[in-house]
Amino acid sequence: MRISIVGLGLIGGSMALDLKAGGFASEVIGVDINQQHCQEAVRRQLVDEIMSLDQALLHCDIMILAVPVHYIIKMLPSILDQVTDQTVIDVGSTKQMAADSVKNHPNRPYYVATHPMAGTEFSGPGAAIPELFKGKVTIFCDVALSSSKAVNTATALYKCLKMPIIEMNSREHDLHAAYVSHISHISSFALALTVLKKEKDTENIFNLASGGFDSTVRLAKSSAAMWTPIFTQNAENVLNVLDTYISELKLFRAAIEQHDAEALNKFIEEANKIRRILKG
Amino acid sequence: MRISIVGLGLIGGSMALDLKAGGFASEVIGVDINQQHCQEAVRRQLVDEIMSLDQALLHCDIMILAVPVHYIIKMLPSILDQVTDQTVIDVGSTKQMAADSVKNHPNRPYYVATHPMAGTEFSGPGAAIPELFKGKVTIFCDVALSSSKAVNTATALYKCLKMPIIEMNSREHDLHAAYVSHISHISSFALALTVLKKEKDTENIFNLASGGFDSTVRLAKSSAAMWTPIFTQNAENVLNVLDTYISELKLFRAAIEQHDAEALNKFIEEANKIRRILKG
Repeated sequence: MRISIVGLGLIGGSMALDLKAGGFASEVIGVDINQQHCQEAVRRQLVDEIMSLDQALLHCDIMILAVPVHYIIKMLPSILDQVTDQTVIDVGSTKQMAADSVKNHPNRPYYVATHPMAGTEFSGPGAAIPELFKGKVTIFCDVALSSSKAVNTATALYKCLKMPIIEMNSREHDLHAAYVSHISHISSFALALTVLKKEKDTENIFNLASGGFDSTVRLAKSSAAMWTPIFTQNAENVLNVLDTYISELKLFRAAIEQHDAEALNKFIEEANKIRRILKG
Repeated sequence: MRISIVGLGLIGGSMALDLKAGGFASEVIGVDINQQHCQEAVRRQLVDEIMSLDQALLHCDIMILAVPVHYIIKMLPSILDQVTDQTVIDVGSTKQMAADSVKNHPNRPYYVATHPMAGTEFSGPGAAIPELFKGKVTIFCDVALSSSKAVNTATALYKCLKMPIIEMNSREHDLHAAYVSHISHISSFALALTVLKKEKDTENIFNLASGGFDSTVRLAKSSAAMWTPIFTQNAENVLNVLDTYISELKLFRAAIEQHDAEALNKFIEEANKIRRILKG
């Protein structure tokens, strides 16, 4: 399969690595508006060559859109305008607006909406690593709107990445993603902002970080280019869960203020239940 | 050195492992009110034998208090009452109340207040692991109030654990610990509570967790027995930083609600600065 990857960042670059290593891709064509990223992707041999978006579509069997989600909704309709027999797969973290952008498009069946639940806090082609996806789940949305051929092609691609597939519709996806993934990022960004504001001695942050701060704040290193459009596209669901988060913090705050050990024990023991769900 | 460890949990147990492996401890005596923990510590060979607190003090050169912080302030004065030539070291996560509990004690010089900045989200002797402390920082508080002999003994002990030592006073410690460590735990507990409340389908939590939730929520697995007393002992500092955290979340919320991409970019880029401070 000849695969064009639009967006040579962490996700696009890591996909390129595994799809080539796994023998699924005979050729990988890279597309990126960032010329430095193009050069780095070629130098790291993530891609075989760089093309424009239009050229890349003509030359491939599968086009993967691995750009920030506000670019996906801009690009997807015009890519479907030009599609002939290619399968178009996006890997964005929000799905409803992408779905809406092409819901009446005559070439909608060529498109498969996916969200591989994998990543790190790093970005750009320099962050691409092998086996980023292995064993993690990928979500397919609204599969009934895609052709069988396109779904089968996407399924084979994710099989090469060693990702189990689960299905849901776009609306459900955005709700669950807000509940589990998007709120985690906000809690982490706000934690970083708080500590940077309160703790003026940065050496203390570094020294004390191994007390747990380092893992909780890891996601705060994530890029604005990726996350700002996710929060705005999924605003309604994100606000909903963020309100619950702030409420929980206020309840926790009240228990501390009242030195209410019983209430604190209850909160913490309830929170501990996450262990059972995460199976470890 | 004969070392008595009071509290055979993650920290006490892990210290036992490394102090024996490093040749610093010729004998390790365990003390715990939890009989199951005593048995497990003996079975795992973390300790050579179990004694009562009084016996253990008589038989050791160094006594380490690795119990929850509300027990430390209860036990420390009476241990100092009985001390003859032993060095008494606590490893609690709050330091001001422990300091206050013995500030006028005639045997105060035998006590060294420390806080090794290491841990995992697991607890009990089964969670003890080798090299938990290696390369992490330990904090010594109010060293001028300890005898040179006691400080030298504690220094040698932490050298065996391969921990660099930094010094500050108890008040500063509790402030910085609240700013960096304690708030991280609250953000994580509240995140777990939020997701457990909003996401009724636990399979979704498991499947979507690899999108970042897993690392952000890791600390929510921490035990109430340890954390409730920390939050109440350090309430003032914790409330102070928690208020800032809630304010930051509200600012973030307002930016999302207004679809203000510029403000969101600014927040996230500011939060990204934590990367520089954590050096990676």
